[in-house]
Amino acid sequence: MAGKVKTRDRILETALALFNEEGEAQVSTVDIAGVMEISPGNLYYHFRGKEAIIEALFDNFEEEMRLVLTAPINRPLAIEDNWVFVYIVFEEINDFRFFYYALSSILERCPDLRPRMTRLLKLKQETANAVLKTLEKEKLVAFGKGEREALAMRLAAHLTFWLQYRGLTAPSNDERAHINSGVYATMMQITPYVRENRETYAAMLAEYFSSLDK
Amino acid sequence: MAGKVKTRDRILETALALFNEEGEAQVSTVDIAGVMEISPGNLYYHFRGKEAIIEALFDNFEEEMRLVLTAPINRPLAIEDNWVFVYIVFEEINDFRFFYYALSSILERCPDLRPRMTRLLKLKQETANAVLKTLEKEKLVAFGKGEREALAMRLAAHLTFWLQYRGLTAPSNDERAHINSGVYATMMQITPYVRENRETYAAMLAEYFSSLDK
Repeated sequence: MAGKVKTRDRILETALALFNEEGEAQVSTVDIAGVMEISPGNLYYHFRGKEAIIEALFDNFEEEMRLVLTAPINRPLAIEDNWVFVYIVFEEINDFRFFYYALSSILERCPDLRPRMTRLLKLKQETANAVLKTLEKEKLVAFGKGEREALAMRLAAHLTFWLQYRGLTAPSNDERAHINSGVYATMMQITPYVRENRETYAAMLAEYFSSLDK
Repeated sequence: MAGKVKTRDRILETALALFNEEGEAQVSTVDIAGVMEISPGNLYYHFRGKEAIIEALFDNFEEEMRLVLTAPINRPLAIEDNWVFVYIVFEEINDFRFFYYALSSILERCPDLRPRMTRLLKLKQETANAVLKTLEKEKLVAFGKGEREALAMRLAAHLTFWLQYRGLTAPSNDERAHINSGVYATMMQITPYVRENRETYAAMLAEYFSSLDK
């Protein structure tokens, strides 16, 4: 049976791909079964409706996201890893973007997910705060009163909604370009607090990202 | 007939209030007619379905938002008016928040609104850029290469999604508190570029807003 993926996992993979591509509202369980060439009854044996699939997908997403977000809280990132870290967070969100795009509609139908989503967003704020604290301790950035906490909260909101914002303002760009622009916009929020040569640093970033699609 | 509001306008007012309070997905045209104590047929005479109501509400919102957003492009704001201006933008968005909360679902059902929403977001970026240019010209702030444009884009995204973010991370706070926190987070994004005494300025803001609910 080597290489054989379980039906349950295949349902989740197929649903995730369809939700992301076509929007969750456009996709029914019958569509998912159809694409997989299994009977709706077989799908129903694994999941009693679309909300059960969404909840199982959220379980996976939450687990991965918690792993990613707690890493820099448990052990400070090396400076050169911050950039990569922001890419990873955006990529996780992008892999699960249907959820963010249909957020209020899904939370109305799956009310159990609301407090879990709230906790995940708060963890995002804590992680941002921990990363900024490390940069501060290493004397790369300096914050005045209240500045670090305010920036951490803004970064968490930025990570949460940027892909959707770019999907609306630059609809012809692809996912990769949206992620690049999100990482750029993240770094540019931190540069103003760099203690030395902040303008050089900002110019370097602008230069680097102007060579990428965004 | 003095003081008598037309049925069409009353439908729009009632729908807006219900959509904002209960979420657009939860409210049907029959609900709206019920609250108004008119027949569904009378409502149907004015609007052929919920999407027609949403589009008429968007017409109103778009008109008001354009008026607000073009003001600082046509004539620079006085420094002391910037703060008030940010409040006004957040209040407009809050008055129409159901639309932002159900954005992707509404844009799927009302595809004509998508390009209009895109244009409105771009106008928001232009306005933010114009306001920052004025602050720069008056030598209150200084930007390095690429910094002003990046900040303008982030501010537009921030104005668009902040209320939703706070609705999720601070669900027990009221609308007024969400707006206060949004204005604070806006100002705190500009202070790092203040040329002189930026930390004093940030501390003043932190002080002022700590006295408000947020």
